[in-house]
Amino acid sequence: MDATRIIETTFPVRYAETDQMGVVHHASYVIWMEEGRSEYMRALGSGYEELERQGHFLALSELKVRYIAAAHYGEKVTVRTRLPSVRSRTMTFDYEIVNAETDAKLVTGQTTLIMIDREGRVMRMPESIRALLGT
Amino acid sequence: MDATRIIETTFPVRYAETDQMGVVHHASYVIWMEEGRSEYMRALGSGYEELERQGHFLALSELKVRYIAAAHYGEKVTVRTRLPSVRSRTMTFDYEIVNAETDAKLVTGQTTLIMIDREGRVMRMPESIRALLGT
Amino acid sequence: MDATRIIETTFPVRYAETDQMGVVHHASYVIWMEEGRSEYMRALGSGYEELERQGHFLALSELKVRYIAAAHYGEKVTVRTRLPSVRSRTMTFDYEIVNAETDAKLVTGQTTLIMIDREGRVMRMPESIRALLGT
Amino acid sequence: MDATRIIETTFPVRYAETDQMGVVHHASYVIWMEEGRSEYMRALGSGYEELERQGHFLALSELKVRYIAAAHYGEKVTVRTRLPSVRSRTMTFDYEIVNAETDAKLVTGQTTLIMIDREGRVMRMPESIRALLGT
Repeated sequence: MDATRIIETTFPVRYAETDQMGVVHHASYVIWMEEGRSEYMRALGSGYEELERQGHFLALSELKVRYIAAAHYGEKVTVRTRLPSVRSRTMTFDYEIVNAETDAKLVTGQTTLIMIDREGRVMRMPESIRALLGT
Repeated sequence: MDATRIIETTFPVRYAETDQMGVVHHASYVIWMEEGRSEYMRALGSGYEELERQGHFLALSELKVRYIAAAHYGEKVTVRTRLPSVRSRTMTFDYEIVNAETDAKLVTGQTTLIMIDREGRVMRMPESIRALLGT
Repeated sequence: MDATRIIETTFPVRYAETDQMGVVHHASYVIWMEEGRSEYMRALGSGYEELERQGHFLALSELKVRYIAAAHYGEKVTVRTRLPSVRSRTMTFDYEIVNAETDAKLVTGQTTLIMIDREGRVMRMPESIRALLGT
Repeated sequence: MDATRIIETTFPVRYAETDQMGVVHHASYVIWMEEGRSEYMRALGSGYEELERQGHFLALSELKVRYIAAAHYGEKVTVRTRLPSVRSRTMTFDYEIVNAETDAKLVTGQTTLIMIDREGRVMRMPESIRALLGT
């Protein structure tokens, strides 16, 4: 695993992601972090959909977000995703969300995911996945 | 089928459902209509989840919404749902969303749903479902 | 106004946009249509956020969607947006959402928007906006 | 402040809140926590909308969620909200989300909110709000 590999994805803020405070709603960043995770796995050459097709699911077990500054409609944001830790049954992703133009830091976050099978039982990560992740 | 049966469900507007215009985002009403539909089926004595368990799915084929006045955070809304039409493969629900306190009309809508099986193929509505719907 | 101008925007389906039917939830397409509209206005050289800054808001008055085939997580979609009609107080956008790779048609839709001021009163579209839209 | 006061709110899971894993999407619980917070403030006799009307906004500065078991469409959930800490500029809410029927614990969470004014500047919590919160 290359803990220093950082995968970036950039997209415009959607109007629906704002709330009446005039800024992006805090739950939207959680979805952006998931999108960062998706992009990370696509960058490895095999999207997360491929995992699910094989009966391996990654369910969230823990989520932490620190909100530093607000994103606004009309801006583009960049999600930077890293995978600092892969263990036998879990993996932890780190995220940094910045304004794509100014690079101002908006949010940092971390999610721990647990591997489960189709029935929702915790399972060991298959060798093929560990290999894909480079661990 | 009792075309005049109206099932109501009432709930508070969620903050996340607003946008930076200071009112409820237009896509939220689409979700409220779905919730009205869910409540309609629960009122028949068998929730929609029971249908899916039996391998019958209702997929949207058409959606129409007319926006009359805006809902706001801090208000409660009532969704009134009717089922004016059930055909061999489709059914159409009508919705009226009002302010629960003033009864002011906010939105009217209509959805047509098509019955599909687990593989996504269009199927005839089973007798058991027609019976449940009273048609 | 150039009724034949088509603005495209392409992005990956987000996991959060799916539902337990295993496909994209029908309300997600409504948000994608809004994103198509945002991209249309950016392509004119002035984003919608600029309109709001000047006190002009576009509120949805009507929404129609026809669902033809489902989008899935792991796919990219393209939203094609046209502006076939601008009137003194309203404008109508047309949308076509396709699978970005196969060009298979997933959804067609239409929204009518009405121009309102900060207090929510219907207003005539300012000359500057009509000029921007090329009408 | 009564750190032991627990405010409950119960509602059905919405179909749109599920994802293709067949369970509720993790971001939905974040919105439910916000709804718990809204209910907490309504229970004090003055909704959060009243705060905003007076120019006081509560913005999220930190979010932590631990996912224990999944909620499903067809179930009702109860959000239990407590306010264990109010400081001069921040307050922290604790949440427990359970299955409303079985009381099985699904999620625990915590949010720290910071009081800001209309311009987004951090401000001291007004006396009136501290009084309302019972601190």
